[in-house]
Amino acid sequence: MIVFPIGSFSSSPIAAVISGVLVLLSCFQATLGAPCPINGLPIVRNISDLPQDNYGRPGLSHITVAGALLHGMKEVEIWLQTFAPGSETPIHRHSCEEIFVVLKGSGTLYLAETHESFPGKPIEFPVFANSTLTIPINDAHQVKNTGHEDLQVLVIISRPPIKVFTYDDWFMPHTAARLKFPYYWDEQCLQESQKDEL
Amino acid sequence: MIVFPIGSFSSSPIAAVISGVLVLLSCFQATLGAPCPINGLPIVRNISDLPQDNYGRPGLSHITVAGALLHGMKEVEIWLQTFAPGSETPIHRHSCEEIFVVLKGSGTLYLAETHESFPGKPIEFPVFANSTLTIPINDAHQVKNTGHEDLQVLVIISRPPIKVFTYDDWFMPHTAARLKFPYYWDEQCLQESQKDEL
Repeated sequence: MIVFPIGSFSSSPIAAVISGVLVLLSCFQATLGAPCPINGLPIVRNISDLPQDNYGRPGLSHITVAGALLHGMKEVEIWLQTFAPGSETPIHRHSCEEIFVVLKGSGTLYLAETHESFPGKPIEFPVFANSTLTIPINDAHQVKNTGHEDLQVLVIISRPPIKVFTYDDWFMPHTAARLKFPYYWDEQCLQESQKDEL
Repeated sequence: MIVFPIGSFSSSPIAAVISGVLVLLSCFQATLGAPCPINGLPIVRNISDLPQDNYGRPGLSHITVAGALLHGMKEVEIWLQTFAPGSETPIHRHSCEEIFVVLKGSGTLYLAETHESFPGKPIEFPVFANSTLTIPINDAHQVKNTGHEDLQVLVIISRPPIKVFTYDDWFMPHTAARLKFPYYWDEQCLQESQKDEL
């Protein structure tokens, strides 16, 4: 959310005009552009026109195709993500449903069942174009591009916005996992009031 | 659901063996194959290996990528659908969230706001590869392949299994719309007990 220093302009007519223009620009951005275009959202959108960022994670390209905080979705959220060779998600878990549909490339899903006090050594599943992955709720997992070309996936989650517990490694106790909320792409748009719903 | 005529075989030892084999085959089908493989579902699946059908609708190819009745999903369901040129969905509405991601081809979304006693003349939206469509909850709509090549879409819905109200035309009163439940691809797998949850 962009915060304008309106107070510092409020003592002159010129400042009032500049302030007004800034407020108009702010409304325009909130309606049509990044980062939080929740109002006036078109029914049909070109995914190529949607904001794309790596959110500080090397090798990642993330686009929120339909999101709770960005677009007002209540029950499902969809991401288009591309992982460069060698890049990966954190080791993490969440208490929502999650399905991947692999559009391009190949990689590995690492999945640990959370029946002990820590994830433990994960099972490895090869993933490939035209495959789909269903992540069991609350199981720690990681997706890594272990191939030689970009790995592109559509990710569908329930109960947005996502609340993620991250692990440094597979033997970190569940009780030590860190809550990452808001998640990377939701940080700019989270309303303070929504934090109470966690 | 395949129903075996076990009763007709029950009067001889040979019939008992055949009956046993049929029951085993039935269990095998329920675990790994069509139509209702809800148990023992692999984490990673090749979408090309999943059952595909037109369910009596000309020009349609439907695959349930991750479904409630087929795969045990609770909160989201995903379909891969291909519409031949000229083919279309019924005019319909539902009270769940729905998002389309267009993978190939082009077409038209017809969308009517349900503020009157009938849908009324719909607004037309061109849809195209790499576009995404968000259908407002309970608005009557129809997707048609108005292009010259196959239109392929991933469809994501919340609150599965889907309950659909269909219309003969855009001026049919909402009160006359017909409930189609279970929907085409859920008919084989709906448990009687789940009907009570409608």
